[in-house]
Order: sequence, then C-alpha cells, then structure tokens
Amino acid sequence: MPAAARILGIDPGSQRTGVGIIDVDAAGRISHVHHVAINLLAAETFPLRLRLLLDGLWELIACFSPSEVSVEQVFLSNNAMSALKLGQARGAAIAACVARDLPVSEYAAKEIKLGLVGSGSADKTQVQHMVGVMLGLSGRLQPDAADALAVAITHAHVRASAARLGVAARVAWGRKR
Amino acid sequence: MPAAARILGIDPGSQRTGVGIIDVDAAGRISHVHHVAINLLAAETFPLRLRLLLDGLWELIACFSPSEVSVEQVFLSNNAMSALKLGQARGAAIAACVARDLPVSEYAAKEIKLGLVGSGSADKTQVQHMVGVMLGLSGRLQPDAADALAVAITHAHVRASAARLGVAARVAWGRKR
Repeated sequence: MPAAARILGIDPGSQRTGVGIIDVDAAGRISHVHHVAINLLAAETFPLRLRLLLDGLWELIACFSPSEVSVEQVFLSNNAMSALKLGQARGAAIAACVARDLPVSEYAAKEIKLGLVGSGSADKTQVQHMVGVMLGLSGRLQPDAADALAVAITHAHVRASAARLGVAARVAWGRKR
Repeated sequence: MPAAARILGIDPGSQRTGVGIIDVDAAGRISHVHHVAINLLAAETFPLRLRLLLDGLWELIACFSPSEVSVEQVFLSNNAMSALKLGQARGAAIAACVARDLPVSEYAAKEIKLGLVGSGSADKTQVQHMVGVMLGLSGRLQPDAADALAVAITHAHVRASAARLGVAARVAWGRKR
C-alpha cells in the first residue's frame, strides 16, 4: 500500500493558473482540501506575473504542506507564441515546486480524461462535472481550478495502482524525457 | 547620472542557459565580472533541469549580488514545441530573479545587435567578437555566455542613455506588455 499523500495539482496558464489540493489515504481514497485560481493578470508586467505565480504557489505550499505535485502535460497548438507564454508559466510553476523540494509528476490530458471519465476524448465540462462528483463538491467549479483538481486526482489514482502492482510510481521528480 | 549597477544578463535555453555579469559605473563604463553557461542536460528529468537552473542562478545571485537583470526577448521559430521548451526555461530563470527581488528588463535581439555592432542584422559571431572587445576578454567565449554578456551590456547602455535623457529606464520589473 502506498503511503498517504497530499497532492498539489497545477493547471498552468499565462493568464490564470489553477491549483487544486487533495488528500489521498493509504487505501487510495481521495478527499478535497482546497482549490483556487491564481489570477496573473492582476500584475502589470510579465516578470511581476511570474512573481504573483511564485508567491501564490509558495503561500499555498507553506499553508497546506503538500507532499507531491502533479502537472498536466501540455497540449500544443500550432501557435508558437501561445506555446512560449504557456511554457513560461509552466516553467515558473514547476520551478516554484522543485525549489520547495517537492517531487513533480506529469500526466497527458488524454490520461486524465480516461481516468476520470473513462474516455480519452471526454470534453472539459464532463471532466469538471466528474471532479465535483468525486470530491463531493456542489456548484460549478472555476474551470482552471477544476483542471488542477483533475490532475491531482489522476496522480492519486496512478500512485495507488502503481503500489498495487508493486512498481515505482512516477513521483520521483517527474518522468524521464 | 544613473547610479552604478551590477547587471546579470541571462540567455535562457532548455539545454544550456548562458549567464554574464558586468559592472557599470555612474559614467556608463562597463567591466567584466563573470560569465558561465549552466548545463541543464546534467540533470535527467525536466523538473530537475529547472532545479539546476534555479540553484545555479541563486548561487550566482548570492555570490555576485547583481542589482539588475537583463534578458533577451525571444526569437520565435514556427516550432511550437521548441517555443514551449524555451518558454519553460525562460519562465523559470525570470522567476528565480524576481524571487530574489531583482528588477528584470527585456531586450529584443535586434536591439542588442544594433547597440553592440551597429546593425540589427549582425550575425552571432560579430556580436560575440564585440562582447570580447568591449570587455577586454581574450579567447573565444562560450556562445551562450557571450549572448548573456551582450544583453547585460545592452542594458548598461540603455540605462545610461535613459539617465542622460532624464527619462526612466526600463528597469522597473520589465516593460509593460
């Protein structure tokens, strides 16, 4: 059985970064702890936006003491400028976590959808609905926070399955590239 | 006259990040302090590479106490995957600096070439040669470190010109976007 863990899920974005925190016990049961969307547009310049992101994540890490981090792998459009902007937010978010000694795992969107809804081609609203059901949350979730909770839940499931199969989970500083 | 400053120039890359540090006195005269290329490929996973980058920059910041940071703006190819990788390194590098309360300025490649070589279409070897001449360095510079020194020199020139003209330099947490 895997040890219990508190998982910090992150959905990085250059305008808003979603954060979701869940607990998973040794039996693999999950429960909701916190979720929030950090609004980066509140800062005027690009470096200050990254600062908002770092400070926001560090405050959440200090407050909730997560033990592991889970981040969605990136869906790439053909737009290089969008990819750069997303990359900058993603790099800063992951850097903030490794700077606090947290192991980071990454999951593809398809893997997240498949695990939560049973189909790799499920749409976003289905995923968001299922996140609410699984964590017993009522009302409509902010989309970025819901996506962050979804990637945290995926990590909880993967580490529980890995423990059942007796293999190492992908929690050791992310997968090899 | 502008105050003297120690400028940290960064040329972010997902495999190697160049760093160059120069001093500029109140008269705008520059001198070489340090340069190095941080090799991110020494780490096995992507999150650990960002950690190498953060730790490397924080060590240099602790060691040399720069007062301002200068980063090259990004030349975008059409390849979204390259843009994402570069963005991740760039986001982590800038986040490392703002986390240490350093103001960050950004300069376009054209602006750097124009300032150093007198032509916005100068090639990289001309820029590298001029960096060596201006800082009195002999021998061939590592290309990423040379680019980092080049963006540091650009910032030294821009802040000196801004002071002469009595306008605010672009040192306040980067330019507005």
